[in-house]
Amino acid sequence: MRILGVDPGLTRCGLGVIDAGNARTARLVAVDVVRTPADASVDVRLGALAEAFDSFLDTHRPDVVSIERVFARNDVSTIMGTAQASGLTMGLAARRGLPVAMHTPSEVKAAVTGNGRADKKQMTHMVTRILKLDAPPRPADAADALALAICHLWRGASAATSTPGATKDLLARQAQGRQGSGLTRAQEQWARAIRRSRE
Amino acid sequence: MRILGVDPGLTRCGLGVIDAGNARTARLVAVDVVRTPADASVDVRLGALAEAFDSFLDTHRPDVVSIERVFARNDVSTIMGTAQASGLTMGLAARRGLPVAMHTPSEVKAAVTGNGRADKKQMTHMVTRILKLDAPPRPADAADALALAICHLWRGASAATSTPGATKDLLARQAQGRQGSGLTRAQEQWARAIRRSRE
Repeated sequence: MRILGVDPGLTRCGLGVIDAGNARTARLVAVDVVRTPADASVDVRLGALAEAFDSFLDTHRPDVVSIERVFARNDVSTIMGTAQASGLTMGLAARRGLPVAMHTPSEVKAAVTGNGRADKKQMTHMVTRILKLDAPPRPADAADALALAICHLWRGASAATSTPGATKDLLARQAQGRQGSGLTRAQEQWARAIRRSRE
Repeated sequence: MRILGVDPGLTRCGLGVIDAGNARTARLVAVDVVRTPADASVDVRLGALAEAFDSFLDTHRPDVVSIERVFARNDVSTIMGTAQASGLTMGLAARRGLPVAMHTPSEVKAAVTGNGRADKKQMTHMVTRILKLDAPPRPADAADALALAICHLWRGASAATSTPGATKDLLARQAQGRQGSGLTRAQEQWARAIRRSRE
């Protein structure tokens, strides 16, 4: 199983891929940090992230994506870019039929270090040891992305993960529903109004 | 000029397209509300929205996208889905080279009704009048999306709008930067470590 860990962000988005081995071992496949400049507009930064993320998926073809669950924290201003980047990467992965799992920061820390309140240094240390690297991953976002992948390998079965191809199934169900039930009365009235306004 | 207004959301995402006419008039081209079921997982809902949004862009080929600026409000729980849906739609529009403009809810209300604190009823009334429709657009998200498109038509020049093709320009600059400057010392050390761990 090949797992892609995503530490979502607009300024830095960490991407780390591992292959699962025997007996809970894992091997590093690739790691990258996608950066977009703070002086570009948000849409352009998201567009650049979309291109980089899709190209990373094309290259490394993971079986599952493990992404940090973004939380409602007090400081909302810092969370907007993270939420937008997470929404974008989740949508792009799901439309390909990839199962996506979400893990909270404390779940990742607990899985990787045994301590849900571990600090950055402990996390980087354990990621380096688990993947048998000669040097710690840099920057921190690279280590965080790899930690998310390792966390999914070890928590896997217990984490909420969408089923492969679930997006296509949903779209098929919705298309069927539209054919079957048609429009509500209000929608029908409105659709007639649109047709008249076009004539 | 063809303008797509987007009222982002996971449960309902409003999409409204208008064509600009002479003397600040506008004509309705299309309107839709993309729905995703609350019982599906967030990634699957975002994947379905990505498919529907890209297909809507393919069909209607807008020149510019006008999207609601999502704000940091007190109730953070309700904002996460909106932020994720806005990030996804902005990224998908920008990667096509479409300029994206953001307008706040009060800017939209002020542009469409003359009153930044107008209620839903006033907004729907004015959208119906401006587009010369026989019946008010339903549901409310359809009217909100059309209001965003009308707002951009009338505020256009004064609003912050990204330049067409800005995402491709950014990606080209980044690719050039990577060729030129190379890696930092820490990144070089880390890249060597990765290579060694693979051997």
